Amino acid sequence: MTSLHRSKLLSVFEKHENSILFIKGASIAFRYNTDHEMAFRQESNFLYLTGIHEPDFSCMLDLSTGEYLLFAPKRDTKYAVWNGYITPQETYKSRYEPDAIYYDTDIEAVLKKKNPKLVYCLDETQAQEIRKLGFTVNSDSLMAAITECRVIKTEWEMVQMRIAGKVTSEAHTEVMRYTKPGLKEYQLKAVFEGVGAKYNCFQQAFSGIYGAGKNSAVLHYQERLDELKSGELVLVDAGLEYNGYAGDVTRTYPVNGKFTETQASIYQICLDAHNATIEAIKPGVLTEDLHLLAAQTIISGLKDMNLVYGEVEELMDQNLFALFFPHGLGHFLGIDTHDVGGYKKGVEPIQRPGIQYLRTRRELEPGMVLTIEPGLYFIPPLLLPAFKNPAQQKFLNIPELTKLLDFGGIRIEDDIHVSETGYENLTDVPKSIADIENEMDN
Amino acid sequence: MTSLHRSKLLSVFEKHENSILFIKGASIAFRYNTDHEMAFRQESNFLYLTGIHEPDFSCMLDLSTGEYLLFAPKRDTKYAVWNGYITPQETYKSRYEPDAIYYDTDIEAVLKKKNPKLVYCLDETQAQEIRKLGFTVNSDSLMAAITECRVIKTEWEMVQMRIAGKVTSEAHTEVMRYTKPGLKEYQLKAVFEGVGAKYNCFQQAFSGIYGAGKNSAVLHYQERLDELKSGELVLVDAGLEYNGYAGDVTRTYPVNGKFTETQASIYQICLDAHNATIEAIKPGVLTEDLHLLAAQTIISGLKDMNLVYGEVEELMDQNLFALFFPHGLGHFLGIDTHDVGGYKKGVEPIQRPGIQYLRTRRELEPGMVLTIEPGLYFIPPLLLPAFKNPAQQKFLNIPELTKLLDFGGIRIEDDIHVSETGYENLTDVPKSIADIENEMDN
Repeated sequence: MTSLHRSKLLSVFEKHENSILFIKGASIAFRYNTDHEMAFRQESNFLYLTGIHEPDFSCMLDLSTGEYLLFAPKRDTKYAVWNGYITPQETYKSRYEPDAIYYDTDIEAVLKKKNPKLVYCLDETQAQEIRKLGFTVNSDSLMAAITECRVIKTEWEMVQMRIAGKVTSEAHTEVMRYTKPGLKEYQLKAVFEGVGAKYNCFQQAFSGIYGAGKNSAVLHYQERLDELKSGELVLVDAGLEYNGYAGDVTRTYPVNGKFTETQASIYQICLDAHNATIEAIKPGVLTEDLHLLAAQTIISGLKDMNLVYGEVEELMDQNLFALFFPHGLGHFLGIDTHDVGGYKKGVEPIQRPGIQYLRTRRELEPGMVLTIEPGLYFIPPLLLPAFKNPAQQKFLNIPELTKLLDFGGIRIEDDIHVSETGYENLTDVPKSIADIENEMDN
Repeated sequence: MTSLHRSKLLSVFEKHENSILFIKGASIAFRYNTDHEMAFRQESNFLYLTGIHEPDFSCMLDLSTGEYLLFAPKRDTKYAVWNGYITPQETYKSRYEPDAIYYDTDIEAVLKKKNPKLVYCLDETQAQEIRKLGFTVNSDSLMAAITECRVIKTEWEMVQMRIAGKVTSEAHTEVMRYTKPGLKEYQLKAVFEGVGAKYNCFQQAFSGIYGAGKNSAVLHYQERLDELKSGELVLVDAGLEYNGYAGDVTRTYPVNGKFTETQASIYQICLDAHNATIEAIKPGVLTEDLHLLAAQTIISGLKDMNLVYGEVEELMDQNLFALFFPHGLGHFLGIDTHDVGGYKKGVEPIQRPGIQYLRTRRELEPGMVLTIEPGLYFIPPLLLPAFKNPAQQKFLNIPELTKLLDFGGIRIEDDIHVSETGYENLTDVPKSIADIENEMDN
């Protein structure tokens, strides 16, 4: 299933006489200086090329022949007693379909036999191992080549990502239904992870954010010890990994299941920004334009609510949007949650408040997958200085904004696959006010 | 609550004129070359001395004055927006009760002011940082000193460990009640972790083992994809961490809730070994003697079942026990699951099959906490060579043992606190045949 990934990578390199790509998979990591084994998670580039979720493998791609050589760990009887059955090489061969299978102890011998002019390595650490064996190494171009391959998902990858989106959606919907006043934030995490565990998805795509009330305005809030109070909102930003592929979804909703009038007005602004940007997605669109569209929708909404003063154009020019929407609109999604390739070589972030944090600045192409996650927050460490800043205070309805300093924030995030003509939404969790209230009423 | 830990440590060192203990806490770790944050877990020695579960702290203990200096990370507005409220130094001071609180940016200045003759560091990495500042460093003795402190638990630590034992016990009992034919092994993991999550115990004390049928004879089995079949046993070895302290419990029981006659006979042998060793626990006893007591109980039981031939004494002398019980009887338990201090300086493992893996070779003292986990397995990679080994085959009932090659294995593990006069069992999960069958019948 990952053979297409390998041929994509080979096609990036010109046909070389006698050169090799060498990529080493991960081993089990330990906690500090102890024997506490961390849960194994394959390194993402190796996973992309091989689909192997086991530790201690390496592989080579021969640029002259296109051959895929796999190196499996050599296990002994002690391993069999402690860690598991010894898998015969033939089983690995049929499971992972390399052109040839070796033991990791054969790496040097295989390289010596092939005697490549150049060995491409993923990074300097792996390069040093190969250099020690006496070969000429390039550690500059392999990572960039794999990165560009990973940006455009194959159909097989989309199958994994649709499942990741489905399981993540089910977990979010379950948490939404479970939410009620009196719970602690971590109890939402317990329910979310419980749904994943049911499907053997124990790996979180990232450290989830479960923030009630004012905690919802801390973008990467991690404490999760506060109580959910009636009358407040709760923000849940969490995702599950399926077969190595990430889901990443955010929903914000009232703890008691019913939006207040103010909550509804503010929520609708963020939802309008979310919907408008998703509707605009198609090949050829620039992500920075999507960011600005979301920002403008948010500023227009705040103006309609009389929370900011002035013309929308001027408010945009003055970067007022970044006071309320201080992070990027979204990021590539794939084997990593903040997936690779957001900036092509030579492209730099736009040096402008808010949009400077945009993790993906590219023209959209079919096969890209990205999150769309506009947010609308009332963050005291941003607003309080702005209230005192002569350049900004004139645009701000300070008395009304002051009332909202404990409001927290809203973020609404879906996972979007760019198609030939538009987009496919991988997320299915209630997000309109009516749908949320209906789901929470059951 | 950890002040007693610091004074214990200070009392290990002679009163030095102008020397300092410097210990650095952990920072958040990232997955390979990505921005994927790993769940934060404090480094165990720093946690022991400070009780701090937050990243980026350091501390000093002044050996001449006994002062405890805490260094908190200096956070800026960006941190406040992204990661959370900025905690005032005064809050840290009342929360963690140091004699003085500084920012981590003050480490150099504080050291320069104190101008210590010697700075003790935990390891060479931390030592290098201090050496760079121009101070004389000792990185040899601090780790050993903290280790000896950690071996004997304080009463506050026992409070944490009793809760860890309680939550771990509840999770095991819940899994036992849930178990039935047709489930997949990972579904037991889901239930186990779900009970922990309910109590905000998301951190597993170690990567749990959930092995059905023959998988129960793979000591560190990790795949967890097989189906639980009626007529087979399932082994669950898992533990939750509470406030940094580990529980570690194993139970083995029939998937369908009812032991067969053979299962019951073999199970009872392991349970007899488990009970006999626990009953023998009191100060002054050597852990290697406990191991041999368990081994002898197992060999006697196998002889009574006619699975091995010969006199028990001879079977012990010939190390036949290690064919069926190839791992150590137990290990220290605490902030780490395989807790520190199992071997005093100069003591080496006994070079004898099975017992060579004993992780704790010490005379028991009040305040020690250790696991007691005898096992009785039929492990093909050990038995098949023994069947052909002239020195061993004569003791083995090869036809009957051959029938058991798919049986798997049994392990029964409790967490035991050595008291002044005997022991306290921190574990409460059904383990007699009648209690298990009764629990699973509900």
